[in-house]
Amino acid sequence: MPRSILLLNGPNLNMLGLREPGIYGAETLQDITDRCRALTADLGLTLEHLQSNHEGALIDAIHAARETHAAIVINPAGYTHTSVAIRDALAMFDGPVIEVHVSNIHQRESFRHHSYVSGVATAVIAGAGSHGYDLAVRHVAKLLSA
Amino acid sequence: MPRSILLLNGPNLNMLGLREPGIYGAETLQDITDRCRALTADLGLTLEHLQSNHEGALIDAIHAARETHAAIVINPAGYTHTSVAIRDALAMFDGPVIEVHVSNIHQRESFRHHSYVSGVATAVIAGAGSHGYDLAVRHVAKLLSA
Amino acid sequence: MPRSILLLNGPNLNMLGLREPGIYGAETLQDITDRCRALTADLGLTLEHLQSNHEGALIDAIHAARETHAAIVINPAGYTHTSVAIRDALAMFDGPVIEVHVSNIHQRESFRHHSYVSGVATAVIAGAGSHGYDLAVRHVAKLLSA
Amino acid sequence: MPRSILLLNGPNLNMLGLREPGIYGAETLQDITDRCRALTADLGLTLEHLQSNHEGALIDAIHAARETHAAIVINPAGYTHTSVAIRDALAMFDGPVIEVHVSNIHQRESFRHHSYVSGVATAVIAGAGSHGYDLAVRHVAKLLSA
Amino acid sequence: MPRSILLLNGPNLNMLGLREPGIYGAETLQDITDRCRALTADLGLTLEHLQSNHEGALIDAIHAARETHAAIVINPAGYTHTSVAIRDALAMFDGPVIEVHVSNIHQRESFRHHSYVSGVATAVIAGAGSHGYDLAVRHVAKLLSA
Amino acid sequence: MPRSILLLNGPNLNMLGLREPGIYGAETLQDITDRCRALTADLGLTLEHLQSNHEGALIDAIHAARETHAAIVINPAGYTHTSVAIRDALAMFDGPVIEVHVSNIHQRESFRHHSYVSGVATAVIAGAGSHGYDLAVRHVAKLLSA
Amino acid sequence: MPRSILLLNGPNLNMLGLREPGIYGAETLQDITDRCRALTADLGLTLEHLQSNHEGALIDAIHAARETHAAIVINPAGYTHTSVAIRDALAMFDGPVIEVHVSNIHQRESFRHHSYVSGVATAVIAGAGSHGYDLAVRHVAKLLSA
Amino acid sequence: MPRSILLLNGPNLNMLGLREPGIYGAETLQDITDRCRALTADLGLTLEHLQSNHEGALIDAIHAARETHAAIVINPAGYTHTSVAIRDALAMFDGPVIEVHVSNIHQRESFRHHSYVSGVATAVIAGAGSHGYDLAVRHVAKLLSA
Amino acid sequence: MPRSILLLNGPNLNMLGLREPGIYGAETLQDITDRCRALTADLGLTLEHLQSNHEGALIDAIHAARETHAAIVINPAGYTHTSVAIRDALAMFDGPVIEVHVSNIHQRESFRHHSYVSGVATAVIAGAGSHGYDLAVRHVAKLLSA
Amino acid sequence: MPRSILLLNGPNLNMLGLREPGIYGAETLQDITDRCRALTADLGLTLEHLQSNHEGALIDAIHAARETHAAIVINPAGYTHTSVAIRDALAMFDGPVIEVHVSNIHQRESFRHHSYVSGVATAVIAGAGSHGYDLAVRHVAKLLSA
Amino acid sequence: MPRSILLLNGPNLNMLGLREPGIYGAETLQDITDRCRALTADLGLTLEHLQSNHEGALIDAIHAARETHAAIVINPAGYTHTSVAIRDALAMFDGPVIEVHVSNIHQRESFRHHSYVSGVATAVIAGAGSHGYDLAVRHVAKLLSA
Amino acid sequence: MPRSILLLNGPNLNMLGLREPGIYGAETLQDITDRCRALTADLGLTLEHLQSNHEGALIDAIHAARETHAAIVINPAGYTHTSVAIRDALAMFDGPVIEVHVSNIHQRESFRHHSYVSGVATAVIAGAGSHGYDLAVRHVAKLLSA
Repeated sequence: MPRSILLLNGPNLNMLGLREPGIYGAETLQDITDRCRALTADLGLTLEHLQSNHEGALIDAIHAARETHAAIVINPAGYTHTSVAIRDALAMFDGPVIEVHVSNIHQRESFRHHSYVSGVATAVIAGAGSHGYDLAVRHVAKLLSA
Repeated sequence: MPRSILLLNGPNLNMLGLREPGIYGAETLQDITDRCRALTADLGLTLEHLQSNHEGALIDAIHAARETHAAIVINPAGYTHTSVAIRDALAMFDGPVIEVHVSNIHQRESFRHHSYVSGVATAVIAGAGSHGYDLAVRHVAKLLSA
Repeated sequence: MPRSILLLNGPNLNMLGLREPGIYGAETLQDITDRCRALTADLGLTLEHLQSNHEGALIDAIHAARETHAAIVINPAGYTHTSVAIRDALAMFDGPVIEVHVSNIHQRESFRHHSYVSGVATAVIAGAGSHGYDLAVRHVAKLLSA
Repeated sequence: MPRSILLLNGPNLNMLGLREPGIYGAETLQDITDRCRALTADLGLTLEHLQSNHEGALIDAIHAARETHAAIVINPAGYTHTSVAIRDALAMFDGPVIEVHVSNIHQRESFRHHSYVSGVATAVIAGAGSHGYDLAVRHVAKLLSA
Repeated sequence: MPRSILLLNGPNLNMLGLREPGIYGAETLQDITDRCRALTADLGLTLEHLQSNHEGALIDAIHAARETHAAIVINPAGYTHTSVAIRDALAMFDGPVIEVHVSNIHQRESFRHHSYVSGVATAVIAGAGSHGYDLAVRHVAKLLSA
Repeated sequence: MPRSILLLNGPNLNMLGLREPGIYGAETLQDITDRCRALTADLGLTLEHLQSNHEGALIDAIHAARETHAAIVINPAGYTHTSVAIRDALAMFDGPVIEVHVSNIHQRESFRHHSYVSGVATAVIAGAGSHGYDLAVRHVAKLLSA
Repeated sequence: MPRSILLLNGPNLNMLGLREPGIYGAETLQDITDRCRALTADLGLTLEHLQSNHEGALIDAIHAARETHAAIVINPAGYTHTSVAIRDALAMFDGPVIEVHVSNIHQRESFRHHSYVSGVATAVIAGAGSHGYDLAVRHVAKLLSA
Repeated sequence: MPRSILLLNGPNLNMLGLREPGIYGAETLQDITDRCRALTADLGLTLEHLQSNHEGALIDAIHAARETHAAIVINPAGYTHTSVAIRDALAMFDGPVIEVHVSNIHQRESFRHHSYVSGVATAVIAGAGSHGYDLAVRHVAKLLSA
Repeated sequence: MPRSILLLNGPNLNMLGLREPGIYGAETLQDITDRCRALTADLGLTLEHLQSNHEGALIDAIHAARETHAAIVINPAGYTHTSVAIRDALAMFDGPVIEVHVSNIHQRESFRHHSYVSGVATAVIAGAGSHGYDLAVRHVAKLLSA
Repeated sequence: MPRSILLLNGPNLNMLGLREPGIYGAETLQDITDRCRALTADLGLTLEHLQSNHEGALIDAIHAARETHAAIVINPAGYTHTSVAIRDALAMFDGPVIEVHVSNIHQRESFRHHSYVSGVATAVIAGAGSHGYDLAVRHVAKLLSA
Repeated sequence: MPRSILLLNGPNLNMLGLREPGIYGAETLQDITDRCRALTADLGLTLEHLQSNHEGALIDAIHAARETHAAIVINPAGYTHTSVAIRDALAMFDGPVIEVHVSNIHQRESFRHHSYVSGVATAVIAGAGSHGYDLAVRHVAKLLSA
Repeated sequence: MPRSILLLNGPNLNMLGLREPGIYGAETLQDITDRCRALTADLGLTLEHLQSNHEGALIDAIHAARETHAAIVINPAGYTHTSVAIRDALAMFDGPVIEVHVSNIHQRESFRHHSYVSGVATAVIAGAGSHGYDLAVRHVAKLLSA
């Protein structure tokens, strides 16, 4: 398996840095993926990134990753709480799946406290801001080196 | 900001006038948007319309509207009750958001009584038939003139 | 049937303009009913207004309206969430019933999310401020002209 | 204690015979009370009747009955499901309390399935139409003769 | 259709008068059915009685009654709260069905507050002691004479 | 603002001392208000008292108190658990609101465990018998002297 | 109406035979559709197949089927439990709708026990493995021949 | 193991064809079992049938089937929703168990949406009318030939 | 009262030792009752045993025991969770009632966590395998000797 | 019994005056206990104080108080909502138990709305700030003098 | 492994015999442990006893028992319903764990109906009074001899 | 503020590496804290560690940390789900609080899905095994350097 991570960002995350910086921070998604890519390279891995607002496009990408990536880091955003279909797609992926949330979802509206994805994720990181992606990448590196 | 309204219609509303006229009335969506456009012009505004059955397409349109429209009138239809992602997209829009339902959703199945969108909408109008779109347009005009 | 609207305002709405203007606006109830009466006249209708803090007084008025009014516009305020009796009274009224809430009740405490009245109302308008009364009057005019 | 029954009818029951005769029958409240009064007389009792749409007026009447009546027959109508205050008033009455509902409330909306009054009533009769009042009167006679 | 009532008593009611007389009274089931039979005769009807602790036997009897009885008076006792099968059997019976409970079930354990039978019963009488059977017989006579 | 307290007692409290003395004590409401008035005078304040069984009358009194009283001590009795309208009225009052219950409502039926009023009250005192009114008056004095 | 069936498969079913064969069997979706097409031909019908991971694409196909197909056989997969929009689209289709699930969803996670689609489906078949599609096709043939 | 199917029908199904034909169809249970027996013979199997209104009789039959039948097709009717005991009996049967419901139980009262039997059934078929029995027999044949 | 214990076993327990020995152990019901009878004799008591799959038969036996037995040991099996009627029958029995479950029902499906019988049982023993019957017999002996 | 009060403060209350003074006030626990001690002396009583973050230590103290104190005033803080063990300990104490909360717990997170202690407390005082301790001491004095 | 039982008693059980003897019996904890020790010796085992009101002390003891005891008999008292930590500690213990409750917790407040410990206990005995400890010791002896 | 982290481990974590290594891994708590200390030193910070099974001891340590540590990394283990008191203590700590769970608690029993601590934690990391502590330390370093 190629030592590659698929980084998936769900709906509205293309707006990161543009909205509610008090909650989500001021970095743009481009800033974050650039930084993650650099970290990934440092750790001897590669990283591919996809952001989509379309549930089906995220599922298609997860399917394709079965052949091409060793791990998935995913921030499902709004689909976290509503998508059984993404959960089912991730359940078919054999490598580690790290679920990341920029904000601490447990401190927001109660409908954000339940994640369909957590039931099939290897690990969950929430509330660490955009640094959560770095932690996720580090954890993948740890798992792939084990 | 251009004095323009984005009118968004969600899944199955392309069938308006073709299905269950007892509940939804006999007008087609084209009839309604024509009438709303005329009313909008009378009120010194312009109106752009998009109907889509794709959740992601609606989100993309809401993002784009940040640059091009002063207000959104949205009938999220079936996504009303299931889409956190559309809610999150609307929450990023700075102008008024008016949620419209053709039927009185409070008199239908209990799963239609909760709306994820209402929590971020400026106002909600339900049960006024297709005239609800006119009322929404009028309310936008009122808000933009305030 | 006389082309007349009964406008009913429930408990505490006599304080409109005097309390929490951030939520309810600065207009007094007198301001609002004056404006609605003018709009009603423009639309070829008449309007009678009653505000009461007494559930029974509101029910009595709804009963009496069966003989004297063609439509009811009602803001049940605190009784929205607790009065089966007002619901039952409205269910006996043959003309349209428009339920109005000045604030968007879906963004307030969860006990304000359920309305006994909505189950028997023709249409529901919430969050449009005092302009919601104008929209309700317009919708009555539309329905009576149909 | 005088051998007298207080018959109390709650909100909207003044409309009996005028609304939804399919559910409530075609008799007016006057018809019913006349018939009950005749039956009461046959059974050697007297009957006083009060209908009010005001929760407080019903409570006042229950308090007064402590001195003047041996039993209460009450159809609390819409207050059945919402009034702890009427329940508390009835709990202070020492004689039998018979709760009557013209329709079978268990076949209507779910919010009509719970009665605050049943918890303090001696007996409950529902779905027997206006004949339920006769049954209630007969049961009071039975209890007072025991 | 013969002018005959089927009186059905469910599980444990064969013990009436033998157990918890504070709740159920001191009369035996034989006393009650004798008295009901006399009342029925006075009203120009006949009465057949069956008590069984077996859910299936009660269902068999309800099926048979379709050919032989004009009405059913049933105290389903413990099966009130657990038997969809008895409910379904009663739903197939074309004549009136009167549900009787000796005690006021609304004042007992919460699992006794819901009845599967009430949803298909014509009327429900609870808390009138064994006199409730008399009231039920009287109501059948009223309905059959209507 | 006059240094005056409005003492409000809700439905059925006119019966204090006359009913269930085991729960509520043997003092009458007159006894209690006399004693509170004396205590209030000792503390350099005045006290006005109103008891009503009418929800609307209590709301009217709360509105009027905005001009005439510095604090409200209220025992909403049965309306505690069912009145959003009284809650809304109290929320508009600028001074302290002390909610008093003679019995410990947490030890009674579960529907008495929730209070709509507590969400807007300054303090809540329950289970201290009629002495709870004295404690409430003392607390008002403390707050007004702060 | 052409004697044609639209077979719709929802998200992740393109992976059938590739994932968790213990639950879903070893046949691929191509195997299944080939077999169903042969069976359909034997029964004098034709079959069109679409699999998509995109909710909107499934809705579009259901709309189009109104003109071109006599029946729909659908396995909504993950959207079964989350899509009001697919339910609404199916509700507009006039012919029979057969809902198929390869596994017995009642034996899996509790969130899979509720289906939005069942409320508008003609029949539901679950747990029959890929043979469930054959049963569905046979049932359509039965219905169209009736 | 003999190639024999036990067909079990629960309470009230002896009335099939006699009640609510709009929901259950006009065929009698005899018609259905005759047709199933013919189909079974065509498929090289035999079929034994039992209908009972007695929960215990159904359990006894399931126990006996362990020695004499290769599969069970069961319509538990009203016991579907209330019988843990039938569930437990079926769980001890080693061959396939097919649960059949004539109507689509998901479109009826909410208490019919849960089945204790589905948790131990191999497959579930609902809403296919009496043809559902044929589908069940075909599925057994498929499983036994596998 | 004779110093005799009635041992009652509910539905499917005739299969003990024949099914799921991992959960229920390998002893047959005959083995267990033989052993209990020996233990009972050692303790100076006698034991009668009945197993039935019929709810009504169990109720009949409980009624009869009022005259003939000093205590009841009962494993209600599947009826534990669904039978109010058995609960009511046991509540009428004056001697001790010991409820036994072979497995630890608190570790199985959630619908097995609630027992209608426990509310009227003297003691409850679960998870001690067939030895639980021995413990129950010992406890009866202890209680009768007290 | 000595005329002594045990004042118990639960977890984190040692930080009073040091944290969130907006909610809890600026007084330290030492300030409060000094003031209460003075008040207690004025009322002819004595006061012992214990603060502990350890649930077991609070229970030990309650047990010991049975011999040495006439009443307990307790602010269980975080253990209010989670400790059945403290409730059970207090239930064994024969004298009055007054539960105090500095803030109005009904206006905070919903998990703070339920108190295990209230079910065994004589009276409950919430939201009166540190003055609530004074009110509790006064109420004890009142009770002990009765 | 030494043939030794650790008997653990949770909060407030040091008061056994001193409080509510109607529920818990008149024996002191010393009486009970003396009797259990004698019984244990008869059965060829030894017994160590610890009672603590401190959750942490109970956990420490359970950890230590891994090296020194073959089985644990525990009455977690108030911690039964609130301690995940004790559950987790018991789950690490390899020998049998018998949970004992002196009273029948299913007949007390509803918050006592759920036990965190039952999910990891081998067997549960409730309502047998202090004799339940004897039964638990006997069951341990049975298990260790198997 | 000293650049020091307080690492807190709750109940049963002293057994890490000794129990259920399939879930928690084979490292001991000593291994983990050694590794974290090394990592902390690399990042220019210091680390103090405390493990306790006593809720009160953890609270005491959190209080003390206000003066001595810049951040807290806490695995509350079983107290995660039951301790409001620990939550309240953490809420008073001004620096970052990182909540760590070795396993993915969202895949375990449902009572482990809710954390009282998450509502006051800065970030939450679950399911990353013992590596989660490293990630937490790295996140603290990131936050302190910001």
